[in-house]
Amino acid sequence: MDSSTRIEQALSAALARAETPSAPSKLASAMSYAVFPRGARVRPRLCLAAAAACGDDQPALTDAAAASIELLHCASLVHDDLPCFDDAALRRGKPSVHVAYGERIAVLAGDALIVLAFEQLAYVPCSPERLPHVMRIVGQSVGMPGGIAAGQAWECEPFCNLVEYHEQKTGALFSAATMLGAAAAGHDPEPWRAVGAQLGLAYQVADDLRDAAADEDELGKPVGKDVTLGRPSAVRDLGIDGAMRRLESLVKGAIAAIPPCPGAGDLRTLILSEAKRLVPKRLAQVAA
Amino acid sequence: MDSSTRIEQALSAALARAETPSAPSKLASAMSYAVFPRGARVRPRLCLAAAAACGDDQPALTDAAAASIELLHCASLVHDDLPCFDDAALRRGKPSVHVAYGERIAVLAGDALIVLAFEQLAYVPCSPERLPHVMRIVGQSVGMPGGIAAGQAWECEPFCNLVEYHEQKTGALFSAATMLGAAAAGHDPEPWRAVGAQLGLAYQVADDLRDAAADEDELGKPVGKDVTLGRPSAVRDLGIDGAMRRLESLVKGAIAAIPPCPGAGDLRTLILSEAKRLVPKRLAQVAA
Repeated sequence: MDSSTRIEQALSAALARAETPSAPSKLASAMSYAVFPRGARVRPRLCLAAAAACGDDQPALTDAAAASIELLHCASLVHDDLPCFDDAALRRGKPSVHVAYGERIAVLAGDALIVLAFEQLAYVPCSPERLPHVMRIVGQSVGMPGGIAAGQAWECEPFCNLVEYHEQKTGALFSAATMLGAAAAGHDPEPWRAVGAQLGLAYQVADDLRDAAADEDELGKPVGKDVTLGRPSAVRDLGIDGAMRRLESLVKGAIAAIPPCPGAGDLRTLILSEAKRLVPKRLAQVAA
Repeated sequence: MDSSTRIEQALSAALARAETPSAPSKLASAMSYAVFPRGARVRPRLCLAAAAACGDDQPALTDAAAASIELLHCASLVHDDLPCFDDAALRRGKPSVHVAYGERIAVLAGDALIVLAFEQLAYVPCSPERLPHVMRIVGQSVGMPGGIAAGQAWECEPFCNLVEYHEQKTGALFSAATMLGAAAAGHDPEPWRAVGAQLGLAYQVADDLRDAAADEDELGKPVGKDVTLGRPSAVRDLGIDGAMRRLESLVKGAIAAIPPCPGAGDLRTLILSEAKRLVPKRLAQVAA
Protein backbone atom coordinates (compact mmCIF):
# COMPACT_ATOMS: atom_id res chain seq x y z
CA MET A 1 0.00 0.00 0.00
CA ASP A 2 1.41 3.43 -0.87
CA SER A 3 1.99 6.12 1.72
CA SER A 4 -0.95 8.28 0.73
CA THR A 5 -3.38 5.41 1.01
CA ARG A 6 -2.00 4.37 4.39
CA ILE A 7 -2.30 7.93 5.71
CA GLU A 8 -5.83 8.56 4.42
CA GLN A 9 -6.97 5.19 5.77
CA ALA A 10 -5.44 5.88 9.19
CA LEU A 11 -7.08 9.31 9.33
CA SER A 12 -10.44 7.88 8.21
CA ALA A 13 -10.23 5.15 10.84
CA ALA A 14 -9.47 7.73 13.52
CA LEU A 15 -12.30 10.05 12.45
CA ALA A 16 -14.71 7.12 12.29
CA ARG A 17 -14.36 6.88 16.09
CA ALA A 18 -15.88 10.35 16.40
CA GLU A 19 -18.68 9.91 13.86
CA THR A 20 -21.15 7.53 15.45
CA PRO A 21 -24.85 8.13 14.71
CA SER A 22 -25.40 9.32 18.29
CA ALA A 23 -22.68 12.00 18.15
CA PRO A 24 -23.62 15.68 17.84
CA SER A 25 -23.58 15.99 14.06
CA LYS A 26 -22.16 19.49 13.60
CA LEU A 27 -19.05 18.75 15.62
CA ALA A 28 -18.53 15.41 13.90
CA SER A 29 -18.93 17.07 10.54
CA ALA A 30 -16.56 19.93 11.45
CA MET A 31 -13.85 17.49 12.52
CA SER A 32 -14.01 15.75 9.15
CA TYR A 33 -14.12 19.09 7.37
CA ALA A 34 -10.90 20.11 9.12
CA VAL A 35 -9.08 16.92 8.08
CA PHE A 36 -10.53 16.17 4.63
CA PRO A 37 -10.09 16.64 1.74
CA ARG A 38 -6.43 16.01 2.08
CA GLY A 39 -3.85 18.71 2.40
CA ALA A 40 -0.29 17.93 1.36
CA ARG A 41 0.09 15.54 4.38
CA VAL A 42 3.75 16.54 4.48
CA ARG A 43 4.27 15.52 8.12
CA PRO A 44 2.68 12.05 8.01
CA ARG A 45 4.47 11.24 4.76
CA LEU A 46 7.73 12.21 6.42
CA CYS A 47 6.85 9.97 9.37
CA LEU A 48 6.20 7.01 7.08
CA ALA A 49 9.40 7.72 5.16
CA ALA A 50 11.49 7.76 8.35
CA ALA A 51 9.80 4.56 9.54
CA ALA A 52 10.49 2.89 6.17
CA ALA A 53 14.13 3.90 6.46
CA CYS A 54 14.15 2.18 9.89
CA GLY A 55 12.49 -1.07 8.72
CA ASP A 56 8.85 -0.22 9.64
CA ASP A 57 8.31 -3.51 11.47
CA GLN A 58 5.05 -2.38 13.15
CA PRO A 59 3.26 -0.46 10.39
CA ALA A 60 0.00 -0.12 12.35
CA LEU A 61 1.83 1.95 14.96
CA THR A 62 3.57 3.98 12.24
CA ASP A 63 0.23 4.74 10.61
CA ALA A 64 -1.37 5.75 13.92
CA ALA A 65 1.60 7.96 14.80
CA ALA A 66 1.41 9.59 11.36
CA ALA A 67 -2.33 10.14 11.78
CA SER A 68 -1.69 11.60 15.22
CA ILE A 69 0.57 14.39 13.97
CA GLU A 70 -1.71 15.17 11.03
CA LEU A 71 -4.74 15.40 13.36
CA LEU A 72 -2.75 17.73 15.62
CA HIS A 73 -1.62 19.79 12.66
CA CYS A 74 -5.25 20.14 11.50
CA ALA A 75 -6.36 21.01 15.05
CA SER A 76 -3.75 23.76 15.25
CA LEU A 77 -4.92 25.20 11.92
CA VAL A 78 -8.53 25.32 13.13
CA HIS A 79 -7.55 27.21 16.27
CA ASP A 80 -4.99 29.42 14.46
CA ASP A 81 -7.74 30.55 12.08
CA LEU A 82 -10.06 31.66 14.92
CA PRO A 83 -11.05 35.34 15.05
CA CYS A 84 -8.87 35.92 18.14
CA PHE A 85 -5.76 34.68 16.27
CA ASP A 86 -5.45 35.07 12.50
CA ASP A 87 -9.15 35.64 11.83
CA ALA A 88 -8.67 33.70 8.60
CA ALA A 89 -11.73 33.22 6.44
CA LEU A 90 -10.13 30.73 4.05
CA ARG A 91 -8.05 27.58 4.50
CA ARG A 92 -6.97 25.26 1.69
CA GLY A 93 -9.24 27.24 -0.63
CA LYS A 94 -12.44 26.73 1.34
CA PRO A 95 -14.07 28.57 4.26
CA SER A 96 -12.19 27.99 7.52
CA VAL A 97 -13.96 25.91 10.17
CA HIS A 98 -15.25 28.83 12.25
CA VAL A 99 -16.67 30.47 9.12
CA ALA A 100 -18.36 27.24 8.02
CA TYR A 101 -19.54 26.01 11.45
CA GLY A 102 -19.30 28.93 13.87
CA GLU A 103 -16.69 29.80 16.43
CA ARG A 104 -17.94 27.47 19.18
CA ILE A 105 -17.82 24.39 16.98
CA ALA A 106 -14.37 25.47 15.75
CA VAL A 107 -13.02 25.62 19.32
CA LEU A 108 -14.54 22.21 20.09
CA ALA A 109 -13.35 20.66 16.81
CA GLY A 110 -9.77 21.64 17.65
CA ASP A 111 -10.14 20.24 21.15
CA ALA A 112 -11.70 16.99 19.97
CA LEU A 113 -9.03 16.51 17.29
CA ILE A 114 -6.29 16.92 19.91
CA VAL A 115 -7.99 14.30 22.08
CA LEU A 116 -8.46 11.97 19.11
CA ALA A 117 -4.80 12.30 18.15
CA PHE A 118 -3.83 10.71 21.46
CA GLU A 119 -6.81 8.45 21.98
CA GLN A 120 -6.47 6.59 18.69
CA LEU A 121 -2.92 5.61 19.63
CA ALA A 122 -4.36 3.54 22.49
CA TYR A 123 -6.20 1.22 20.09
CA VAL A 124 -3.17 0.20 18.01
CA PRO A 125 -2.04 -3.40 18.28
CA CYS A 126 1.68 -2.88 18.96
CA SER A 127 4.48 -3.69 21.38
CA PRO A 128 3.22 -2.02 24.56
CA GLU A 129 6.65 -0.63 25.43
CA ARG A 130 6.72 1.47 22.25
CA LEU A 131 3.52 3.38 23.06
CA PRO A 132 4.94 5.64 25.82
CA HIS A 133 7.83 6.67 23.55
CA VAL A 134 5.42 7.60 20.78
CA MET A 135 3.14 9.50 23.19
CA ARG A 136 6.03 11.52 24.59
CA ILE A 137 7.17 12.60 21.15
CA VAL A 138 3.61 13.56 20.18
CA GLY A 139 3.09 15.45 23.43
CA GLN A 140 6.36 17.34 23.21
CA SER A 141 5.63 18.40 19.65
CA VAL A 142 2.28 19.96 20.37
CA GLY A 143 2.20 21.13 23.98
CA MET A 144 4.32 23.14 26.36
CA PRO A 145 7.11 24.10 26.76
CA GLY A 146 8.34 23.36 23.23
CA GLY A 147 5.42 22.38 20.99
CA ILE A 148 2.93 24.11 18.72
CA ALA A 149 0.97 25.68 21.58
CA ALA A 150 4.19 27.21 22.89
CA GLY A 151 5.10 28.48 19.44
CA GLN A 152 1.70 30.09 19.00
CA ALA A 153 1.97 31.62 22.48
CA TRP A 154 5.14 33.51 21.48
CA GLU A 155 2.82 35.68 19.36
CA CYS A 156 1.33 36.88 22.67
CA GLU A 157 4.68 37.77 24.31
CA PRO A 158 6.19 41.27 24.11
CA PHE A 159 9.54 39.79 23.08
CA CYS A 160 9.55 36.92 20.59
CA ASN A 161 12.61 34.76 19.95
CA LEU A 162 12.33 34.13 16.19
CA VAL A 163 14.32 30.88 16.33
CA GLU A 164 12.22 29.38 19.16
CA TYR A 165 9.04 30.66 17.56
CA HIS A 166 9.72 28.85 14.28
CA GLU A 167 11.18 25.78 15.93
CA GLN A 168 8.09 25.37 18.07
CA LYS A 169 5.31 26.53 15.82
CA THR A 170 6.43 24.55 12.79
CA GLY A 171 9.66 22.67 13.50
CA ALA A 172 8.25 20.74 16.45
CA LEU A 173 5.81 18.73 14.34
CA PHE A 174 8.46 18.08 11.70
CA SER A 175 10.93 16.83 14.30
CA ALA A 176 8.11 14.72 15.70
CA ALA A 177 7.39 13.31 12.24
CA THR A 178 10.86 11.87 11.73
CA MET A 179 11.26 10.88 15.40
CA LEU A 180 7.88 9.12 15.43
CA GLY A 181 8.75 7.16 12.32
CA ALA A 182 11.91 5.93 14.02
CA ALA A 183 10.22 5.27 17.39
CA ALA A 184 7.30 3.39 15.80
CA ALA A 185 9.87 1.14 14.11
CA GLY A 186 11.60 0.54 17.45
CA HIS A 187 14.63 2.74 16.72
CA ASP A 188 16.13 5.44 18.90
CA PRO A 189 14.25 8.58 17.82
CA GLU A 190 16.81 11.13 19.02
CA PRO A 191 19.18 11.00 15.98
CA TRP A 192 16.14 11.71 13.79
CA ARG A 193 15.29 14.97 15.53
CA ALA A 194 17.69 17.08 13.44
CA VAL A 195 16.30 15.78 10.14
CA GLY A 196 12.79 16.92 10.97
CA ALA A 197 13.97 20.11 12.66
CA GLN A 198 15.86 21.29 9.57
CA LEU A 199 12.90 20.45 7.36
CA GLY A 200 10.54 22.27 9.68
CA LEU A 201 12.64 25.42 9.46
CA ALA A 202 12.82 24.98 5.68
CA TYR A 203 9.07 24.63 5.52
CA GLN A 204 8.57 27.81 7.57
CA VAL A 205 10.94 29.77 5.32
CA ALA A 206 9.08 28.40 2.30
CA ASP A 207 5.80 29.43 3.91
CA ASP A 208 7.11 32.96 4.43
CA LEU A 209 8.21 32.99 0.78
CA ARG A 210 4.81 31.81 -0.37
CA ASP A 211 3.10 34.42 1.78
CA ALA A 212 5.28 37.09 0.18
CA ALA A 213 5.57 35.84 -3.40
CA ALA A 214 2.79 33.39 -4.25
CA ASP A 215 -0.60 34.40 -5.54
CA GLU A 216 -3.85 33.66 -3.74
CA ASP A 217 -4.94 30.90 -6.16
CA GLU A 218 -1.72 28.97 -5.58
CA LEU A 219 -1.84 29.39 -1.81
CA GLY A 220 -5.57 28.78 -1.30
CA LYS A 221 -5.69 31.58 1.27
CA PRO A 222 -5.00 35.33 1.29
CA VAL A 223 -1.34 36.34 0.81
CA GLY A 224 0.63 39.07 2.55
CA LYS A 225 -0.89 38.14 5.93
CA ASP A 226 2.47 38.10 7.78
CA VAL A 227 3.23 41.68 6.87
CA THR A 228 -0.33 42.83 7.62
CA LEU A 229 -0.21 41.18 11.04
CA GLY A 230 3.38 42.33 11.73
CA ARG A 231 4.44 38.72 12.32
CA PRO A 232 7.99 37.36 12.35
CA SER A 233 9.01 36.35 8.82
CA ALA A 234 12.22 35.18 7.14
CA VAL A 235 11.40 37.35 4.13
CA ARG A 236 11.10 40.41 6.35
CA ASP A 237 14.48 39.62 7.95
CA LEU A 238 16.47 38.29 4.97
CA GLY A 239 14.75 39.50 1.83
CA ILE A 240 13.47 37.12 -0.85
CA ASP A 241 16.91 36.13 -2.18
CA GLY A 242 18.27 35.60 1.32
CA ALA A 243 15.27 33.50 2.25
CA MET A 244 15.72 31.37 -0.88
CA ARG A 245 19.39 30.73 0.05
CA ARG A 246 18.36 29.87 3.61
CA LEU A 247 15.78 27.40 2.32
CA GLU A 248 18.37 25.63 0.17
CA SER A 249 20.85 25.41 3.03
CA LEU A 250 18.23 23.98 5.40
CA VAL A 251 17.21 21.26 2.92
CA LYS A 252 20.87 20.28 2.49
CA GLY A 253 21.25 20.22 6.26
CA ALA A 254 18.25 17.89 6.63
CA ILE A 255 19.68 15.47 4.09
CA ALA A 256 23.08 15.54 5.76
CA ALA A 257 21.43 14.75 9.11
CA ILE A 258 19.83 11.46 7.99
CA PRO A 259 21.30 8.74 10.23
CA PRO A 260 22.86 5.76 8.42
CA CYS A 261 20.00 3.39 7.51
CA PRO A 262 18.95 1.14 4.62
CA GLY A 263 16.26 3.55 3.37
CA ALA A 264 18.41 6.70 3.36
CA GLY A 265 18.37 6.97 -0.44
CA ASP A 266 14.58 6.94 -0.75
CA LEU A 267 14.28 9.44 2.07
CA ARG A 268 16.73 11.80 0.36
CA THR A 269 14.65 11.61 -2.83
CA LEU A 270 11.44 12.37 -0.94
CA ILE A 271 12.99 15.36 0.81
CA LEU A 272 14.28 16.85 -2.45
CA SER A 273 10.91 16.44 -4.15
CA GLU A 274 9.13 18.03 -1.16
CA ALA A 275 11.54 20.94 -1.21
CA LYS A 276 10.80 21.65 -4.89
CA ARG A 277 7.08 21.59 -4.26
CA LEU A 278 7.39 24.18 -1.49
CA VAL A 279 8.94 27.00 -3.51
CA PRO A 280 6.35 29.43 -4.91
CA LYS A 281 5.91 28.87 -8.66
CA ARG A 282 6.93 32.44 -9.50
CA LEU A 283 10.26 32.10 -7.69
CA ALA A 284 10.89 28.59 -8.99
CA GLN A 285 10.48 29.95 -12.54
CA VAL A 286 12.91 32.79 -11.81
CA ALA A 287 15.41 30.35 -10.27
CA ALA A 288 15.07 27.86 -13.14
CA MET B 1 -0.03 10.40 52.02
CA ASP B 2 -3.61 11.68 51.95
CA SER B 3 -5.60 12.01 48.74
CA SER B 4 -5.41 15.79 48.54
CA THR B 5 -1.65 15.80 48.84
CA ARG B 6 -1.29 13.08 46.22
CA ILE B 7 -3.53 14.98 43.80
CA GLU B 8 -1.87 18.37 44.27
CA GLN B 9 1.57 16.78 43.92
CA ALA B 10 0.58 14.97 40.74
CA LEU B 11 -0.85 18.17 39.26
CA SER B 12 2.24 20.16 40.26
CA ALA B 13 4.51 17.55 38.71
CA ALA B 14 2.50 17.67 35.48
CA LEU B 15 2.48 21.47 35.34
CA ALA B 16 6.22 21.58 36.05
CA ARG B 17 6.74 19.96 32.64
CA ALA B 18 5.20 23.03 31.00
CA GLU B 19 6.97 25.66 33.09
CA THR B 20 10.58 25.57 32.00
CA PRO B 21 12.47 28.89 31.95
CA SER B 22 12.50 28.85 28.15
CA ALA B 23 8.70 28.48 27.84
CA PRO B 24 6.56 31.47 26.81
CA SER B 25 5.73 32.82 30.24
CA LYS B 26 2.15 34.01 29.76
CA LEU B 27 0.95 30.62 28.58
CA ALA B 28 2.83 28.80 31.34
CA SER B 29 1.35 31.16 33.89
CA ALA B 30 -2.17 30.81 32.49
CA MET B 31 -1.99 27.02 32.65
CA SER B 32 -1.09 27.19 36.34
CA TYR B 33 -3.74 29.81 36.92
CA ALA B 34 -6.37 27.48 35.43
CA VAL B 35 -5.37 24.58 37.70
CA PHE B 36 -4.36 26.29 40.97
CA PRO B 37 -5.42 27.17 43.58
CA ARG B 38 -7.30 23.97 43.99
CA GLY B 39 -10.97 23.58 43.23
CA ALA B 40 -12.89 20.81 44.95
CA ARG B 41 -10.94 18.17 42.98
CA VAL B 42 -14.07 16.01 43.08
CA ARG B 43 -13.12 13.87 40.08
CA PRO B 44 -9.51 13.02 41.04
CA ARG B 45 -10.58 12.25 44.62
CA LEU B 46 -13.19 9.89 43.24
CA CYS B 47 -10.51 8.28 41.07
CA LEU B 48 -8.24 7.73 44.06
CA ALA B 49 -11.14 6.39 46.11
CA ALA B 50 -12.08 3.86 43.42
CA ALA B 51 -8.42 2.83 43.08
CA ALA B 52 -8.16 2.40 46.86
CA ALA B 53 -11.26 0.22 46.81
CA CYS B 54 -9.48 -1.93 44.17
CA GLY B 55 -6.16 -2.23 46.02
CA ASP B 56 -4.25 0.67 44.38
CA ASP B 57 -1.19 -1.47 43.66
CA GLN B 58 0.36 1.07 41.22
CA PRO B 59 -0.31 4.40 42.92
CA ALA B 60 1.89 6.38 40.51
CA LEU B 61 -0.46 5.43 37.66
CA THR B 62 -3.51 6.21 39.81
CA ASP B 63 -2.11 9.66 40.61
CA ALA B 64 -1.31 10.39 36.95
CA ALA B 65 -4.77 9.22 35.86
CA ALA B 66 -6.35 11.42 38.53
CA ALA B 67 -4.24 14.38 37.40
CA SER B 68 -5.23 13.68 33.81
CA ILE B 69 -8.97 14.06 34.42
CA GLU B 70 -8.49 17.15 36.59
CA LEU B 71 -6.31 18.78 33.88
CA LEU B 72 -9.00 17.97 31.32
CA HIS B 73 -11.72 19.31 33.60
CA CYS B 74 -9.75 22.56 34.03
CA ALA B 75 -9.14 22.77 30.27
CA SER B 76 -12.85 22.41 29.59
CA LEU B 77 -13.65 25.19 32.07
CA VAL B 78 -11.18 27.54 30.37
CA HIS B 79 -12.75 26.93 26.97
CA ASP B 80 -16.34 26.95 28.34
CA ASP B 81 -15.72 30.40 29.80
CA LEU B 82 -14.61 31.87 26.44
CA PRO B 83 -16.64 34.73 24.99
CA CYS B 84 -18.05 32.48 22.24
CA PHE B 85 -19.45 30.06 24.84
CA ASP B 86 -20.50 31.26 28.30
CA ASP B 87 -18.58 34.56 28.18
CA ALA B 88 -17.96 34.07 31.91
CA ALA B 89 -15.90 36.75 33.64
CA LEU B 90 -15.48 34.83 36.90
CA ARG B 91 -14.45 31.28 37.80
CA ARG B 92 -13.86 30.01 41.33
CA GLY B 93 -14.17 33.61 42.55
CA LYS B 94 -11.39 35.03 40.37
CA PRO B 95 -11.25 36.41 36.83
CA SER B 96 -11.58 33.64 34.24
CA VAL B 97 -8.50 32.85 32.15
CA HIS B 98 -9.49 34.87 29.07
CA VAL B 99 -10.23 37.90 31.27
CA ALA B 100 -6.90 37.59 33.08
CA TYR B 101 -4.71 36.62 30.09
CA GLY B 102 -6.67 37.40 26.94
CA GLU B 103 -8.64 35.17 24.64
CA ARG B 104 -5.69 33.85 22.61
CA ILE B 105 -3.82 32.62 25.67
CA ALA B 106 -7.07 31.10 27.00
CA VAL B 107 -7.54 29.05 23.81
CA LEU B 108 -3.90 27.91 23.96
CA ALA B 109 -4.02 27.16 27.69
CA GLY B 110 -6.98 24.85 27.14
CA ASP B 111 -5.20 23.16 24.24
CA ALA B 112 -1.94 22.75 26.15
CA LEU B 113 -3.74 21.36 29.21
CA ILE B 114 -5.45 18.73 27.03
CA VAL B 115 -2.08 17.75 25.59
CA LEU B 116 -0.48 17.66 29.04
CA ALA B 117 -3.29 15.45 30.38
CA PHE B 118 -2.25 12.73 27.93
CA GLU B 119 1.47 13.42 27.73
CA GLN B 120 2.12 13.14 31.47
CA LEU B 121 0.65 9.61 31.41
CA ALA B 122 3.55 8.55 29.19
CA TYR B 123 6.12 9.29 31.92
CA VAL B 124 4.57 7.11 34.64
CA PRO B 125 6.53 4.06 35.71
CA CYS B 126 3.80 1.40 35.46
CA SER B 127 2.92 -1.91 33.86
CA PRO B 128 2.98 -1.01 30.16
CA GLU B 129 -0.17 -3.00 29.41
CA ARG B 130 -2.24 -0.78 31.71
CA LEU B 131 -1.43 2.45 29.87
CA PRO B 132 -3.62 1.86 26.77
CA HIS B 133 -6.61 1.07 29.00
CA VAL B 134 -6.12 4.28 30.94
CA MET B 135 -5.67 6.31 27.74
CA ARG B 136 -8.84 4.92 26.19
CA ILE B 137 -10.91 5.84 29.25
CA VAL B 138 -9.43 9.33 29.33
CA GLY B 139 -10.00 9.82 25.60
CA GLN B 140 -13.59 8.59 25.68
CA SER B 141 -14.42 10.91 28.57
CA VAL B 142 -13.26 14.08 26.90
CA GLY B 143 -13.52 13.68 23.13
CA MET B 144 -16.05 12.55 20.59
CA PRO B 145 -18.56 10.93 20.33
CA GLY B 146 -19.32 10.69 24.05
CA GLY B 147 -17.02 13.00 26.03
CA ILE B 148 -17.00 16.60 27.22
CA ALA B 149 -16.46 18.05 23.76
CA ALA B 150 -19.51 16.15 22.51
CA GLY B 151 -21.55 17.36 25.48
CA GLN B 152 -20.58 20.95 24.86
CA ALA B 153 -21.38 20.54 21.17
CA TRP B 154 -25.00 19.65 21.97
CA GLU B 155 -25.40 23.31 22.91
CA CYS B 156 -24.81 24.07 19.22
CA GLU B 157 -27.43 21.62 17.89
CA PRO B 158 -31.03 22.62 17.16
CA PHE B 159 -32.30 19.57 19.10
CA CYS B 160 -30.55 18.66 22.34
CA ASN B 161 -31.04 15.32 24.06
CA LEU B 162 -30.98 16.36 27.74
CA VAL B 163 -29.85 12.94 28.98
CA GLU B 164 -26.95 12.68 26.50
CA TYR B 165 -26.05 16.31 27.10
CA HIS B 166 -25.65 15.80 30.86
CA GLU B 167 -24.08 12.36 30.53
CA GLN B 168 -21.43 13.71 28.20
CA LYS B 169 -20.82 17.19 29.52
CA THR B 170 -20.52 16.15 33.15
CA GLY B 171 -21.15 12.43 33.57
CA ALA B 172 -18.36 11.37 31.21
CA LEU B 173 -15.57 12.66 33.46
CA PHE B 174 -17.23 11.15 36.53
CA SER B 175 -17.54 7.76 34.87
CA ALA B 176 -13.92 8.14 33.82
CA ALA B 177 -12.91 8.93 37.41
CA THR B 178 -14.20 5.68 38.85
CA MET B 179 -13.19 3.63 35.79
CA LEU B 180 -9.67 5.07 35.82
CA GLY B 181 -9.26 4.25 39.50
CA ALA B 182 -10.17 0.64 38.77
CA ALA B 183 -8.07 0.42 35.58
CA ALA B 184 -5.01 1.97 37.23
CA ALA B 185 -5.29 -0.72 39.90
CA GLY B 186 -5.47 -3.43 37.25
CA HIS B 187 -9.20 -4.13 37.66
CA ASP B 188 -11.86 -4.32 34.97
CA PRO B 189 -13.10 -0.72 34.71
CA GLU B 190 -16.49 -1.49 33.14
CA PRO B 191 -18.42 -2.34 36.34
CA TRP B 192 -17.26 1.01 37.74
CA ARG B 193 -18.85 3.05 34.95
CA ALA B 194 -22.29 3.19 36.58
CA VAL B 195 -20.90 4.49 39.89
CA GLY B 196 -19.32 7.51 38.25
CA ALA B 197 -22.20 7.98 35.81
CA GLN B 198 -24.77 8.27 38.61
CA LEU B 199 -22.53 10.67 40.51
CA GLY B 200 -21.99 12.76 37.40
CA LEU B 201 -25.72 13.13 36.91
CA ALA B 202 -26.09 13.95 40.61
CA TYR B 203 -23.39 16.58 40.31
CA GLN B 204 -25.10 18.16 37.31
CA VAL B 205 -28.45 18.31 39.14
CA ALA B 206 -26.65 19.83 42.14
CA ASP B 207 -25.01 22.35 39.80
CA ASP B 208 -28.41 23.31 38.37
CA LEU B 209 -29.71 23.68 41.94
CA ARG B 210 -26.76 25.86 42.88
CA ASP B 211 -27.24 27.99 39.79
CA ALA B 212 -30.89 28.48 40.73
CA ALA B 213 -30.67 28.67 44.53
CA ALA B 214 -27.16 29.54 45.71
CA ASP B 215 -25.86 33.05 46.12
CA GLU B 216 -22.91 34.41 44.19
CA ASP B 217 -20.51 34.34 47.17
CA GLU B 218 -21.13 30.65 47.74
CA LEU B 219 -20.80 29.78 44.07
CA GLY B 220 -17.82 32.03 43.24
CA LYS B 221 -19.44 32.94 39.91
CA PRO B 222 -22.64 34.66 38.76
CA VAL B 223 -25.89 32.74 39.44
CA GLY B 224 -28.95 32.34 37.25
CA LYS B 225 -26.77 31.82 34.15
CA ASP B 226 -28.65 28.72 32.92
CA VAL B 227 -31.95 30.59 32.73
CA THR B 228 -30.34 33.65 31.15
CA LEU B 229 -28.68 31.50 28.48
CA GLY B 230 -31.77 29.29 28.00
CA ARG B 231 -29.72 26.20 28.75
CA PRO B 232 -31.05 22.75 29.67
CA SER B 233 -31.52 22.52 33.46
CA ALA B 234 -33.02 19.99 35.87
CA VAL B 235 -34.53 22.85 37.87
CA ARG B 236 -36.25 24.17 34.76
CA ASP B 237 -37.65 20.71 34.01
CA LEU B 238 -38.42 19.39 37.53
CA GLY B 239 -38.66 22.40 39.84
CA ILE B 240 -36.45 22.79 42.91
CA ASP B 241 -38.16 20.08 44.99
CA GLY B 242 -38.17 17.64 42.10
CA ALA B 243 -34.51 18.32 41.44
CA MET B 244 -33.70 17.72 45.13
CA ARG B 245 -35.48 14.32 45.01
CA ARG B 246 -33.66 13.43 41.81
CA LEU B 247 -30.31 14.29 43.42
CA GLU B 248 -31.02 12.01 46.39
CA SER B 249 -32.07 9.14 44.16
CA LEU B 250 -28.94 9.45 42.02
CA VAL B 251 -26.63 9.39 45.04
CA LYS B 252 -28.37 6.25 46.31
CA GLY B 253 -28.02 4.72 42.85
CA ALA B 254 -24.29 5.43 42.81
CA ILE B 255 -23.79 3.75 46.16
CA ALA B 256 -25.83 0.73 45.08
CA ALA B 257 -23.67 0.41 41.95
CA ILE B 258 -20.35 0.01 43.80
CA PRO B 259 -18.97 -3.40 42.79
CA PRO B 260 -18.08 -5.77 45.65
CA CYS B 261 -14.59 -4.77 46.87
CA PRO B 262 -12.65 -4.40 50.13
CA GLY B 263 -12.85 -0.59 50.15
CA ALA B 264 -16.58 -0.29 49.46
CA GLY B 265 -17.34 1.13 52.92
CA ASP B 266 -14.85 4.00 52.66
CA LEU B 267 -16.10 4.80 49.19
CA ARG B 268 -19.70 4.93 50.41
CA THR B 269 -18.66 7.39 53.13
CA LEU B 270 -16.82 9.61 50.64
CA ILE B 271 -19.79 9.68 48.26
CA LEU B 272 -22.22 10.65 51.04
CA SER B 273 -19.96 13.44 52.27
CA GLU B 274 -19.54 14.74 48.70
CA ALA B 275 -23.27 14.72 48.18
CA LYS B 276 -23.85 16.86 51.28
CA ARG B 277 -21.28 19.38 50.15
CA LEU B 278 -22.98 19.79 46.79
CA VAL B 279 -26.38 20.96 47.99
CA PRO B 280 -26.68 24.78 48.14
CA LYS B 281 -26.56 25.95 51.77
CA ARG B 282 -29.98 27.60 51.57
CA LEU B 283 -31.63 24.36 50.43
CA ALA B 284 -29.64 22.21 52.88
CA GLN B 285 -30.94 24.43 55.72
CA VAL B 286 -34.50 24.10 54.47
CA ALA B 287 -34.10 20.33 54.16
CA ALA B 288 -32.49 19.92 57.63
